Amino acid sequence: MTRRGRHFLQIPGPTNTPDRILRAMAAPTIDHRGPEFAELGHEVLAGLKTVFQTASPVVVYPASGSGAQEASLVNTLSPGDAVLAFDIGEFSKNWAELARRLGLDVELMPGTWRRGVDPDEVAERLARDLRDHRGHLIKALLVVHNETSTGVTSRLPEIRRAVDLARHPALLLVDAVSSLGSIDLRHDEWRLDVTLAGSQKGLMLPPGLSFNAISAKALAASKEARLPRAYWAWDAMLAANVNGFFPTTPSTNLLFGLREALRMLVEEGLPAVFTRHRRLAEAARAAVRAWGLEILCERDDELSAVVTTVVMPGGHDADRFRAIVLDRFNMALGAGLGRLKGRTFRIGHLGDFNELMLIGTLGGVELGLAAAGVPFTRGGVDAALALLSVREAVESAPGVSGR
Amino acid sequence: MTRRGRHFLQIPGPTNTPDRILRAMAAPTIDHRGPEFAELGHEVLAGLKTVFQTASPVVVYPASGSGAQEASLVNTLSPGDAVLAFDIGEFSKNWAELARRLGLDVELMPGTWRRGVDPDEVAERLARDLRDHRGHLIKALLVVHNETSTGVTSRLPEIRRAVDLARHPALLLVDAVSSLGSIDLRHDEWRLDVTLAGSQKGLMLPPGLSFNAISAKALAASKEARLPRAYWAWDAMLAANVNGFFPTTPSTNLLFGLREALRMLVEEGLPAVFTRHRRLAEAARAAVRAWGLEILCERDDELSAVVTTVVMPGGHDADRFRAIVLDRFNMALGAGLGRLKGRTFRIGHLGDFNELMLIGTLGGVELGLAAAGVPFTRGGVDAALALLSVREAVESAPGVSGR
Amino acid sequence: MTRRGRHFLQIPGPTNTPDRILRAMAAPTIDHRGPEFAELGHEVLAGLKTVFQTASPVVVYPASGSGAQEASLVNTLSPGDAVLAFDIGEFSKNWAELARRLGLDVELMPGTWRRGVDPDEVAERLARDLRDHRGHLIKALLVVHNETSTGVTSRLPEIRRAVDLARHPALLLVDAVSSLGSIDLRHDEWRLDVTLAGSQKGLMLPPGLSFNAISAKALAASKEARLPRAYWAWDAMLAANVNGFFPTTPSTNLLFGLREALRMLVEEGLPAVFTRHRRLAEAARAAVRAWGLEILCERDDELSAVVTTVVMPGGHDADRFRAIVLDRFNMALGAGLGRLKGRTFRIGHLGDFNELMLIGTLGGVELGLAAAGVPFTRGGVDAALALLSVREAVESAPGVSGR
Amino acid sequence: MTRRGRHFLQIPGPTNTPDRILRAMAAPTIDHRGPEFAELGHEVLAGLKTVFQTASPVVVYPASGSGAQEASLVNTLSPGDAVLAFDIGEFSKNWAELARRLGLDVELMPGTWRRGVDPDEVAERLARDLRDHRGHLIKALLVVHNETSTGVTSRLPEIRRAVDLARHPALLLVDAVSSLGSIDLRHDEWRLDVTLAGSQKGLMLPPGLSFNAISAKALAASKEARLPRAYWAWDAMLAANVNGFFPTTPSTNLLFGLREALRMLVEEGLPAVFTRHRRLAEAARAAVRAWGLEILCERDDELSAVVTTVVMPGGHDADRFRAIVLDRFNMALGAGLGRLKGRTFRIGHLGDFNELMLIGTLGGVELGLAAAGVPFTRGGVDAALALLSVREAVESAPGVSGR
Repeated sequence: MTRRGRHFLQIPGPTNTPDRILRAMAAPTIDHRGPEFAELGHEVLAGLKTVFQTASPVVVYPASGSGAQEASLVNTLSPGDAVLAFDIGEFSKNWAELARRLGLDVELMPGTWRRGVDPDEVAERLARDLRDHRGHLIKALLVVHNETSTGVTSRLPEIRRAVDLARHPALLLVDAVSSLGSIDLRHDEWRLDVTLAGSQKGLMLPPGLSFNAISAKALAASKEARLPRAYWAWDAMLAANVNGFFPTTPSTNLLFGLREALRMLVEEGLPAVFTRHRRLAEAARAAVRAWGLEILCERDDELSAVVTTVVMPGGHDADRFRAIVLDRFNMALGAGLGRLKGRTFRIGHLGDFNELMLIGTLGGVELGLAAAGVPFTRGGVDAALALLSVREAVESAPGVSGR
Repeated sequence: MTRRGRHFLQIPGPTNTPDRILRAMAAPTIDHRGPEFAELGHEVLAGLKTVFQTASPVVVYPASGSGAQEASLVNTLSPGDAVLAFDIGEFSKNWAELARRLGLDVELMPGTWRRGVDPDEVAERLARDLRDHRGHLIKALLVVHNETSTGVTSRLPEIRRAVDLARHPALLLVDAVSSLGSIDLRHDEWRLDVTLAGSQKGLMLPPGLSFNAISAKALAASKEARLPRAYWAWDAMLAANVNGFFPTTPSTNLLFGLREALRMLVEEGLPAVFTRHRRLAEAARAAVRAWGLEILCERDDELSAVVTTVVMPGGHDADRFRAIVLDRFNMALGAGLGRLKGRTFRIGHLGDFNELMLIGTLGGVELGLAAAGVPFTRGGVDAALALLSVREAVESAPGVSGR
Repeated sequence: MTRRGRHFLQIPGPTNTPDRILRAMAAPTIDHRGPEFAELGHEVLAGLKTVFQTASPVVVYPASGSGAQEASLVNTLSPGDAVLAFDIGEFSKNWAELARRLGLDVELMPGTWRRGVDPDEVAERLARDLRDHRGHLIKALLVVHNETSTGVTSRLPEIRRAVDLARHPALLLVDAVSSLGSIDLRHDEWRLDVTLAGSQKGLMLPPGLSFNAISAKALAASKEARLPRAYWAWDAMLAANVNGFFPTTPSTNLLFGLREALRMLVEEGLPAVFTRHRRLAEAARAAVRAWGLEILCERDDELSAVVTTVVMPGGHDADRFRAIVLDRFNMALGAGLGRLKGRTFRIGHLGDFNELMLIGTLGGVELGLAAAGVPFTRGGVDAALALLSVREAVESAPGVSGR
Repeated sequence: MTRRGRHFLQIPGPTNTPDRILRAMAAPTIDHRGPEFAELGHEVLAGLKTVFQTASPVVVYPASGSGAQEASLVNTLSPGDAVLAFDIGEFSKNWAELARRLGLDVELMPGTWRRGVDPDEVAERLARDLRDHRGHLIKALLVVHNETSTGVTSRLPEIRRAVDLARHPALLLVDAVSSLGSIDLRHDEWRLDVTLAGSQKGLMLPPGLSFNAISAKALAASKEARLPRAYWAWDAMLAANVNGFFPTTPSTNLLFGLREALRMLVEEGLPAVFTRHRRLAEAARAAVRAWGLEILCERDDELSAVVTTVVMPGGHDADRFRAIVLDRFNMALGAGLGRLKGRTFRIGHLGDFNELMLIGTLGGVELGLAAAGVPFTRGGVDAALALLSVREAVESAPGVSGR
């Protein structure tokens, strides 16, 4: 089947890679031990610090995000260590499962998939841990910043505060795969210990690279950690990075793309990037509400700026709807994952994204709902336009500095 | 200034080149006299015949559309020959002016820029010519099929009939720059003598190639024509084309792209291509009408399927509006040309274009009108969606074959 | 500094990626859970079997070759398992070290870095193991097929025979990173248990993908193996692969490139690929010998078809020579690694490589030797040409079928 | 047939386009009337002046080099004007023929195809013209700077002097298609009136753009010139260029490539570019002489720095030889053109070219001669290496500044 016109890749990552980055990636591979590579290495390693908002080192793996999840654990923990995870979505659950497979003692706190990690529960659980642990203290918290499956963003600063109030020594490991470069994420200010991320979301690259930003506390922990590790080992990585190199063969062409992506983020400025995502997300939600459809996320202060998960009206299969949208309108929407399969669909609105791409995206959802016979109220796109229009007017009003 | 997200190039050509074609063009140049090139030459020359709906030869110039306009004249006419042109838009006028510069005796029939060439006027003028010419018969008619500046498509079959009825021997030269590959254009069935076109519209390429499809009658005329010609000369071109080659160095990388474009058009099928353009154009006009804005084209049977020219409300500068749209929403709209400058803007909806691109485009116009303080009624995008939605429903109804 | 003309990337991998593959990789990323991706997945998974010459499954990691080394171990072995490795070069040593870091009991058999794994020693050691092991039998052999650091290719069929003769149950794990797709490698016929490889050598891609081909015996072993694993786990991978998908986000754009690479290898035919590499390697060695320089590899039947490691005359620094070649002639040569640093340089002649690229490469070495003041006899390039010329003549002789 | 490894495009243009330029060309087309385009336009128009070494305007045509030849004539001359051309090669002859087709009175001075335009003959002919012309003075000289078919570079400064000495008012029109950007060419200093060139040689682009650099005298002539012109007319072009725009749709993506190419030439520096070509050409000729083959060009001071035309030994077909080289070694060599067809072949050594590409190229010729059974003495590549090596040594000697 021939689909014409631009494909709309509106899954919540991989995102629409700007052609500027695709072209950068198409350059011929260079010697990963030569002087040109060293320049590349230094530039991307420095640029990543800017994006993670950290002065600490950030390491780069030729691997997908799951690899960075594994790396965050094997570098900081020992077999049988207790870790606290949260059952708030597919990727949170997967990370917990991954930790279990690696031999950690995982406590998966039950949660609804419509909310983020609850700072109060964290505070309570950690306080109890300090009282009761009998020498087997929780060593790390595994928190997914933006849960890509549910469109819920956990309140990291409050979680940090909860840990602080409890005076608990646990490491705070954060999965920022779908937030980095789109939602404000402050590795240093929030004292995150490991922040892990991937290339294919806010960084606008194809998948294939992932990252660990490493606090001093995490680095100290890695000296004692006894989980076996080699590919993921920070020590060899950090040693080689000093000279702009990598201990094993790096994914050079993706690094070419990363360099371009980092330049683009700096050109726009991180605050502008975050503002852009917030207002596009707000417009997306205005559309969903106008359609009379339900947004999965229950809390206003946890609504994701990068993905909106929509609950399908009962009796309607979200995957059939998505197939129609793909087939007729050349747009890929995100599937419901895990227990949400068939019951939700996800609108990705992150990365290199703007107003008109959003309007096109929402138009595709609206046309798709009609084509699939899903009951809904027309006017979602219109509602998004109204909201964007008001914002435009406000931002262009005298005395208001838009960006 | 940094603009983020995909650029919407919604001028009525050059159009959004599919990345598939851009990648094809990025292949290393090859020897234009070698065996691989011959295969390329044969394939594109054959494919062009399909798109022009002709069994006659089509020649390819490394030149823009104006070059093909010049070629159509210098190959068929002699100094001082009388030609009939029509003042119905900027490109029609330019072609007439070009003919005048080349030493032809151009009669520019007055017209409104809101209608196409009038078949009745053509019939009347040609009949008069046969009566009165005193040995100085009109040698050729210069008709622009789709006038890109006004969004008006002349009724070529009726014009052909008018010439036939008048039993006038004039050559029918047709500029199909913005219609070929988007609007039905039948070089053979409509007995056009020269149909000229360019690469950057329905053929989805960057600019740089242009074409002449040549009827047997035009070819015969070229044997007698005495306007000086060398670069544009058909004879050398046709002789070299027999072997898949060109008499001068061809624009090899654009030909790589052309090969890909022709394959894409065949994959979709010309009828599907034309239908797609018609319904997207209808949706675009639904939006304009809902906004309460005026469409320049006055006749329903001359509305263009590739570009909609919108009249700006009095007192509002169309170019200021376009600048705001470009600046805030990363979309380029077409300027008013010639006498329409500042008074109209043009929405290009041709080439590799689909529903969601259109919705995004119209969203950008609606947001731009608001941002520019132009008076309009909201709801244009919504009207377009409604129209596309009905079509979707009808086309998916049982017993109705959509494509 | 501006270097002009084509860069010669003559390290023994990453290799010169054909522009056809670079362009394939530059296509927009697609939904890794959609129908188009499934087609991609099925095609590359099937194509890899062809290249590994196996009917068994091959899994693909978004990771570099070291990741595939790790995967081969964690999937088949348990903590403390005895493995036999061979100190015959940098990558062999690294693999052993990696095994040690993962908690395996590694016996590193001493070797010279000028020879491959000795089948006789293997036979002897395994026989002894069966006699003496006291319940702690060697579980696996770690053999690097082509040692990229030394230019020595171990005789896998003879090693296989040695294991068979000893009737020893150890798994035969083979690192084919730099041989796959360039040197004959028969996963099934040679009954290799895990054959691991990477994308950036004979497969002509940039780095970033790596592979495990898995025998039934290895798969069975994986059911019992207790080394912790998650990212590398075969079970989840194989389960997802059934439908053409991957358990974690795959490196989609590198897979686009892989599809193209596999098509290219099939177009040429594996036997032709292997023959091409053999004769180009022979010509490279003819040059080295004519220069009066020493080839590191001592055995004629172990000379590598993909890389020639050259011993620098005493008192001359190979890295200074390489820097001059890069600076003046825009060619990257491979560095001496580990204990060979500064004492050897490596000429990569693999991947998408042909006669003229080789001649240019050797020309660069010859010019570089002169520029660096290294004592040598002129005429190396000439010797290579003589050899290639004879071959050409023979192959074009009547009755001789070249390929 | 599958050919592996990098293709060597060693015809004397189109040349091997650097991937950096191919990637620049692959960017999405932009509005040719928008602000981004104006920046592009200004940059390339300024950059072209640098390369033509002129302060006068340079215009850009979306056309091949023949178009620029036509443009130089129709803008400066009137029907029946006398022009002096020189039969010294295929492109010189073609230009004369083109002039004749346009209605000019062409005098084609006989010449050998082994030498350039003879300044003495020019002086003599112009002096005679001033004596005898009877009111029909020669209006222009048509001189091809580097005759691509023969590998002969005419001595432009001496020709300029000859015209000056004769005190003849003729315009000096120069075809620099294959010299610009490779061989020193000084539009202003040598007082050339029109210098025309194309994109696909020293400018390293694919074909499709061509140029006219226009002296004040030529511009004045264009006010009186009466040959019909429209597409090629300087006046409309110069008027639009003032704002960075073009009167007709420009070949935007080739202009993207041109911008990159101009930046590359400036990065290297024109003097370094010319030196590079001179020494590579010298090495190419050393090879040809060592093979015992004849170079077509007879004069040492007219040897081309961009192409070497080699005379095939009697009884051997140059085209058969070229087909073998293409088929076996994936290299395209230039054919003998016109009267030289089958009797010569041409080695292009221009554009983005370096030592190792040359060695590979010469290696391909040497292997091809052997494979085709052409009698020759081995050692050509070796001779080229010897020459390049000496140069390297000299240039790196103390006190000698290479570039």
